[in-house]
Amino acid sequence: MAQTQSPHSAVIKCALLQHTCGDDLAHNTAMTTSLIEKAASNGAQLVVLQELHRSRYFCQSENTDTFDLAEPIPGPSTDHYAQVAKRCGVVIVTSLFEKRAVGLYHNTAVVLDSDGTIAGTYRKMHIPDDPGFYEKFYFTPGDLGFEPIHTSLGKLGILVCWDQWFPEAARLMTMAGAELLIYPTAIGWDLGDDAAEQQRQCDAWETIQRSHAIANGIPVLACNRTGYEPDPSGTTQGIQFWGNSFIAGPQGELLAKAEPSPHLPESPQQNIILYAELDMNRSEQVRRIWPYLRDRRIDHYSDLTQLYRN
Amino acid sequence: MAQTQSPHSAVIKCALLQHTCGDDLAHNTAMTTSLIEKAASNGAQLVVLQELHRSRYFCQSENTDTFDLAEPIPGPSTDHYAQVAKRCGVVIVTSLFEKRAVGLYHNTAVVLDSDGTIAGTYRKMHIPDDPGFYEKFYFTPGDLGFEPIHTSLGKLGILVCWDQWFPEAARLMTMAGAELLIYPTAIGWDLGDDAAEQQRQCDAWETIQRSHAIANGIPVLACNRTGYEPDPSGTTQGIQFWGNSFIAGPQGELLAKAEPSPHLPESPQQNIILYAELDMNRSEQVRRIWPYLRDRRIDHYSDLTQLYRN
Repeated sequence: MAQTQSPHSAVIKCALLQHTCGDDLAHNTAMTTSLIEKAASNGAQLVVLQELHRSRYFCQSENTDTFDLAEPIPGPSTDHYAQVAKRCGVVIVTSLFEKRAVGLYHNTAVVLDSDGTIAGTYRKMHIPDDPGFYEKFYFTPGDLGFEPIHTSLGKLGILVCWDQWFPEAARLMTMAGAELLIYPTAIGWDLGDDAAEQQRQCDAWETIQRSHAIANGIPVLACNRTGYEPDPSGTTQGIQFWGNSFIAGPQGELLAKAEPSPHLPESPQQNIILYAELDMNRSEQVRRIWPYLRDRRIDHYSDLTQLYRN
Repeated sequence: MAQTQSPHSAVIKCALLQHTCGDDLAHNTAMTTSLIEKAASNGAQLVVLQELHRSRYFCQSENTDTFDLAEPIPGPSTDHYAQVAKRCGVVIVTSLFEKRAVGLYHNTAVVLDSDGTIAGTYRKMHIPDDPGFYEKFYFTPGDLGFEPIHTSLGKLGILVCWDQWFPEAARLMTMAGAELLIYPTAIGWDLGDDAAEQQRQCDAWETIQRSHAIANGIPVLACNRTGYEPDPSGTTQGIQFWGNSFIAGPQGELLAKAEPSPHLPESPQQNIILYAELDMNRSEQVRRIWPYLRDRRIDHYSDLTQLYRN
């Protein structure tokens, strides 16, 4: 089959940073920066950071003091990672707790282009709320919609964590021209669940994200936190973030997968850089023979804008 | 967690019939009937037949004589399976080539309730067309939309083959109250593809259907054809239908999976009845803690009714 030229380089080397986060914010940022530098020195052009990597996952409890962690855009984090992006010559997908106004906060991903500019932002559209993940207390659902961010490496479809369970989000990003889907995420096990339930959850998480690659004919990158973090309120047993970051090609095939997080809180954690080379011409080939975009029944999809059909 | 009572029995024993099809229509129907009887004698209450099981998969070539295979609803096939359903006391999901009018044909699933009545029909909404699967020549895309069929066992969300690649279809069925998603299908390998490509295709097929269970919190049943069928036109090497029928629970977890179809045309084929018991109360439990229906951003989904966003 004839190759179709992309306006961008045909192969992108990408890197996902899967690591633990501690209480010391400066230490977390230094460690993340060091991992970006290492990835860049190994040839990565696109570096994806996990969700809310500056701190421990603070949504385990609801505490008004926690809003002190939030910062504006541009602000300290984007200034820092913009410098790193420029110095290392890489595109960085970062994630932060955005303070937009007094009393208005978002869970936001920011893309820094390799020239040190802010290429764009995405505000997490679907916000979870379940025991240990009290995000509706902290984050207003995004109002920027599903718009890819244009970078020197192509159009990046950034979505965040809970978005990953919604095929609508992946589809809308694709329809807007996204060439990759990228999910910074922070998901883990409730240690009160048994091993079989934990396995079903982790399998489901990987399966549904691979399905977005399949349905849309584009690669998917999922970068998850790892390590145990206690519940500051002492109410639950804390969260064991399950790692398992992965990179899938446009048929949903696994190109790279990080080691799973150990189940037990006391196990040592390993910080991982997960690499893959993405052939950006593959989507052209895959979509020619799996032409789902050709056949969508838009004349019968209008009820998708309802919550339910009764 | 408290159990919520379903209006229907909490556990449904279901059976999928995965088998080869030959040139002799009467033989195919007799064999299918015999498998239904066996499934019923083993306690199945719901029996799912594969797509277009009355004949070989005739869409490998485009031939106007093939339209002779089509039949009305009600017609010979629905009369026959209605009798079988009543005699065996089972709900049957059958699939046939529907002649609706001169020059107007559909790929249609019909559900026969256990009292021998036609519970409802579903006309395949998404129609494929790729080498060896020339369905757009034979079938007009369905006009009945995504409506579950009400039966004595609950509301069945019937979708057919190519529909399986479209998250929109699974979502709309769910939103209309479907308690199960059921896919009669006939998918197989182009023998010109290498083993790695064949594996990617089969994995993708299973992954995206499991993802519909996950996204929607309901079980998925996929009943596929097996066996080699030559291309009547002699143009291609024919199709090796890949079997691999499966039943997944509402977290996408595999409850039962049929043996894969052997890769080689000359291998012996085995007809399989795949059983699983579905706990219809599990969706209630799963959706309480994975509440995706709670969080859909319908205020930002209106572009789903577009083909693309440019």
